Amino acid sequence: MLKAGRSQEEIRQHNLGALLRHVHLGGAVSRAVLADRMGLNRSTIMALTAELTSAGLVREELPKETRKAGRPSLVVRPESDRVYVLAFDVRVDRLVAARVGLGGTILARREAVRRRAGADLDDVVGVLARFARLLHRDARPDSVCVGVGAAYCGMIRPGDGMVRFGPNMGWVDQAFGTELSDRLGLGLPVAVGNEAHLGALAEHQRGAGVGFQNLVYLHGDVGVGGGIIVGGKLLDGDRGYGCELGHMIVNPYDGRACGCGSRGCLEAEVGEQALIDMAGRTSELSGREGVRAVVDAAARGDEPARDALRRIGDWLGIGVANLINLFNPGVVIFGGMLREVYPSAAPEVHHRVTSNALVISREVHLRTSGLGDDSTLIGAAELAFSKVLSSPLEALAR
Amino acid sequence: MLKAGRSQEEIRQHNLGALLRHVHLGGAVSRAVLADRMGLNRSTIMALTAELTSAGLVREELPKETRKAGRPSLVVRPESDRVYVLAFDVRVDRLVAARVGLGGTILARREAVRRRAGADLDDVVGVLARFARLLHRDARPDSVCVGVGAAYCGMIRPGDGMVRFGPNMGWVDQAFGTELSDRLGLGLPVAVGNEAHLGALAEHQRGAGVGFQNLVYLHGDVGVGGGIIVGGKLLDGDRGYGCELGHMIVNPYDGRACGCGSRGCLEAEVGEQALIDMAGRTSELSGREGVRAVVDAAARGDEPARDALRRIGDWLGIGVANLINLFNPGVVIFGGMLREVYPSAAPEVHHRVTSNALVISREVHLRTSGLGDDSTLIGAAELAFSKVLSSPLEALAR
Repeated sequence: MLKAGRSQEEIRQHNLGALLRHVHLGGAVSRAVLADRMGLNRSTIMALTAELTSAGLVREELPKETRKAGRPSLVVRPESDRVYVLAFDVRVDRLVAARVGLGGTILARREAVRRRAGADLDDVVGVLARFARLLHRDARPDSVCVGVGAAYCGMIRPGDGMVRFGPNMGWVDQAFGTELSDRLGLGLPVAVGNEAHLGALAEHQRGAGVGFQNLVYLHGDVGVGGGIIVGGKLLDGDRGYGCELGHMIVNPYDGRACGCGSRGCLEAEVGEQALIDMAGRTSELSGREGVRAVVDAAARGDEPARDALRRIGDWLGIGVANLINLFNPGVVIFGGMLREVYPSAAPEVHHRVTSNALVISREVHLRTSGLGDDSTLIGAAELAFSKVLSSPLEALAR
Repeated sequence: MLKAGRSQEEIRQHNLGALLRHVHLGGAVSRAVLADRMGLNRSTIMALTAELTSAGLVREELPKETRKAGRPSLVVRPESDRVYVLAFDVRVDRLVAARVGLGGTILARREAVRRRAGADLDDVVGVLARFARLLHRDARPDSVCVGVGAAYCGMIRPGDGMVRFGPNMGWVDQAFGTELSDRLGLGLPVAVGNEAHLGALAEHQRGAGVGFQNLVYLHGDVGVGGGIIVGGKLLDGDRGYGCELGHMIVNPYDGRACGCGSRGCLEAEVGEQALIDMAGRTSELSGREGVRAVVDAAARGDEPARDALRRIGDWLGIGVANLINLFNPGVVIFGGMLREVYPSAAPEVHHRVTSNALVISREVHLRTSGLGDDSTLIGAAELAFSKVLSSPLEALAR
């Protein structure tokens, strides 16, 4: 309920965050452009910039070149080397950690390939904490860590980062967020999100989905996860467990068994193992390597591989058409292993979209992820930055 | 971007609308309760109520009985007999028109049963305009019509009420909204919405979905439409054509032909004709009457009818499980003819939800529509009221 106008102080805090967000997402930008985009006058922009500069969040400099006559407008840049977050990405086959600077630059990263079986919470958190120490050690002494975020391949309870259900790693009700926070010992909470949710957010803010208010992101891995942006916001549902498009049943009676216990789920029909099995390569390879081998073989003309990709493409197209009918998105983005599969399966996907999506919703872009394999990691970093972007001075004052 | 606080005048307008909305949705309520719910003091409530009273939108009266000592708080009531909208519901088999008073009371209604074939725009608009004249004629002379809304069984372009695609009535690009507005001659625009979208809004505001921020509404008719509320707002998608859950493909390879040109869509598997065909009654009956006959026969123990309902229930359950995985809703509501089918098909639906929805999202209520067969009509009325609820005095000043 509106009782009265916001106080000057609230407005100032809001505008500081908004300016920092512009610079964080858009990169170096002149004061003049900021004034224009934010609808504020230049003296207000100058005051806000001065405050962010003295807090060490941005710096101002003369533009490298200018074509206009007169005094050039100073350029405002994020302090990418000084203000950073830690971002983690816990995948079935890999653990990734990165130091990501304000502005979204990955400053340093560490990775470990994992064997599929037997990774318990303690092992995973141990590896990530070790990576964090190494990443901190290499940071500039005057730099500051303002947040920690993690992407996880499972269903995450909002608020405390509890992994409720991570079937592909065999985790149920594991206190991942709090455990990692304790082990890091930075006095910072760890914001945890589902990997595909975070991938969708990252693609929406910095990738193939910039400018779209409605987008569907499909993230392929052992399973297929989803992140869906509706009206500019991530769909979370009543408890934060929405977007599970991988468990949309597309093949109810002849479907492959799924890790969730059901049959014919989209992820059972188009996941890594389905492709490898259909190509007749079950005994040779598995995981992402196996997917690449099938895609490469198809490119060389191997008929079983091509046929497998066609069949995967057909199921994927059914799923995508259903999602288009439900969400009327502006763009559908394929990430994770689907980024590698989609180009070879595109004709079948397009065919299904043309025949199964309602004619009026068919004008939709189909794209691979703009951030390559880093969508989920960048999404974790964005989650970690959210505090400093909403109240810049408070987050630093800790 | 926030530049400054809202003006006192903006706040007053906002609060007038908010108070009117409370009374419109909640019915008669004391000033004391309004003060409490809106977080405003009683003198502000008194001033707002006085203004709405003098505009003729609400009236104040002493409560019928009071248990507390001291001066009783006056009760604020919507002027249901004086302030009304016209609501229309265009269905494949029926045209409905109603005069609906502020507060949501249906004051009077007119209906015409339609033969399926050959209803063109001109015929439909002609019937609705005649109904409108009759409804106006019977209204109190001092009453005022503040809006017009219509529900239509097809895809509607937001803004101008153009029917883009109404396959079940054979309409493509028909200017329904503007044509009806012209023919009514009230100088009011006609707000048109997809019937299932409006059904969802009505159930959310007044029906089985009150209190849920995430709900899925399935509306069965010749086809199956959907309205999905995400975070309290109707999912519309990039151009307003989202929520088409009836065209989610659940049976891609053995599916029945669908009116959209595809195969195995949810609406092809669970629509009226599917049920009637499966029960072996194709030659006897059609439409809603046919559905009722099958449900009645099943209740009497007719085995083909029971089997048909089991099969419909299984497909419906697959669709519902998929929607639960995607939207993590608090409630799923069955409206239109599905309101009559669901009780007989509930065991199969529950079985599919238990086996196909992810365990963590299964805690969801499955209910038939709380507004009976009037969800879509009430939704059209709510659409018509939206102007007066957002700026009460302006809407009356016309």
